[in-house]
Amino acid sequence: MFLGKVIGTVWSTKKDENLVGAKFLIVKQLDLNLNEKDSFVVAVDSVGAGEGEIVLVATGSSSRQTEITKNKPVDAVIMAIVDKLDIALKEYLVEHQE
Amino acid sequence: MFLGKVIGTVWSTKKDENLVGAKFLIVKQLDLNLNEKDSFVVAVDSVGAGEGEIVLVATGSSSRQTEITKNKPVDAVIMAIVDKLDIALKEYLVEHQE
Amino acid sequence: MFLGKVIGTVWSTKKDENLVGAKFLIVKQLDLNLNEKDSFVVAVDSVGAGEGEIVLVATGSSSRQTEITKNKPVDAVIMAIVDKLDIALKEYLVEHQE
Amino acid sequence: MFLGKVIGTVWSTKKDENLVGAKFLIVKQLDLNLNEKDSFVVAVDSVGAGEGEIVLVATGSSSRQTEITKNKPVDAVIMAIVDKLDIALKEYLVEHQE
Amino acid sequence: MFLGKVIGTVWSTKKDENLVGAKFLIVKQLDLNLNEKDSFVVAVDSVGAGEGEIVLVATGSSSRQTEITKNKPVDAVIMAIVDKLDIALKEYLVEHQE
Repeated sequence: MFLGKVIGTVWSTKKDENLVGAKFLIVKQLDLNLNEKDSFVVAVDSVGAGEGEIVLVATGSSSRQTEITKNKPVDAVIMAIVDKLDIALKEYLVEHQE
Repeated sequence: MFLGKVIGTVWSTKKDENLVGAKFLIVKQLDLNLNEKDSFVVAVDSVGAGEGEIVLVATGSSSRQTEITKNKPVDAVIMAIVDKLDIALKEYLVEHQE
Repeated sequence: MFLGKVIGTVWSTKKDENLVGAKFLIVKQLDLNLNEKDSFVVAVDSVGAGEGEIVLVATGSSSRQTEITKNKPVDAVIMAIVDKLDIALKEYLVEHQE
Repeated sequence: MFLGKVIGTVWSTKKDENLVGAKFLIVKQLDLNLNEKDSFVVAVDSVGAGEGEIVLVATGSSSRQTEITKNKPVDAVIMAIVDKLDIALKEYLVEHQE
Repeated sequence: MFLGKVIGTVWSTKKDENLVGAKFLIVKQLDLNLNEKDSFVVAVDSVGAGEGEIVLVATGSSSRQTEITKNKPVDAVIMAIVDKLDIALKEYLVEHQE
């Protein structure tokens, strides 16, 4: 999985019929200091993630292993919202955005 | 999924027999300002996307999860046409090309 | 899929027993001006592609969705020979090599 | 698989219900001199790896082929702890961290 | 598949129980002049490859399509030993290391 931050939403009316109701979020990749990288993906949300939240994203066939994404043409899913990172001597507190 | 723009078509007569009728579109990858990157893929269209339209592309095994691509040797599919991106304080209006 | 050009062949005697008879071609990746990039893959041919031809290559699990590659340990397949690219105002004619 | 070093843990309360109990470790990629690269993934632990240990990580659908990760939305798993690398004339001893 | 050269072995005692007996080889990626690139993977050997040999490596789910790797958490397999490359006007002889 990669570490990311939700920064926006993609709206689409004309899409695969199995994707009606799916929420497409724009997720920027983060480094270990929680700084945003340039790269991003559009991922389906399966855990109620909101803008500004730090999340984990699973890609490829693994992204179809949730109730919401099963058998659907999606290759990235948000499957966890991150509370905290523990890294060696450093500790990052991630404040949730309500 | 990645954000892309349809810029052309690939024509092929000699291809896997399961791909007869499939439409191969050239999709350039976009950044969040909707500027084209250098990278591109050739993707099968499953939603009636046209040249100049902003789309979402799913890759890998996920690209075989549409009616049109099921069990076929394709690794990229256009599964949504983008209406609008909402990004934090910015808002991008995507005009559809008819 | 990516756009590529067949530039050679890989010969192997000692290989997985399911791969006996499979033809391994060296395919360089192309940009949209049909110039060769540095990157290349070794792909199994499923459509009778020859040296110098412009082709489409599908990778990953999708490369096992042809008669020739089914259930075999290959992760790249040539599944189409390209006749022509139509790109916006430009048109590229691809001459087949016989 | 890639060679990595466990450097930390990701904590998450709100996640896919099938992931309750899974341990998410931060794994930095290593070069052949065992120096850390910039890139990292968040991987589920299936072998009891601890911080500082050198491990192998399998990604993609292969990461779901362990008892712990089966049918779950994860795309990276630690499936081995490395004892030693033998490279040509060089030999790297990897000391385990207890 | 990519073209690689076996340069070493990874030893692991603590690993997924399905991987007992599997041989993990370190494979550096090669360019078309058979020069080693920086990138490498750790791959399971399915064809009896030895150090110094030029091989083909299949990655992803395709790496589980051999007798030795079936249903196991591995994402790279050596599935062929290369005898020779034929490239346009150039010909590379690959001498096997016994």
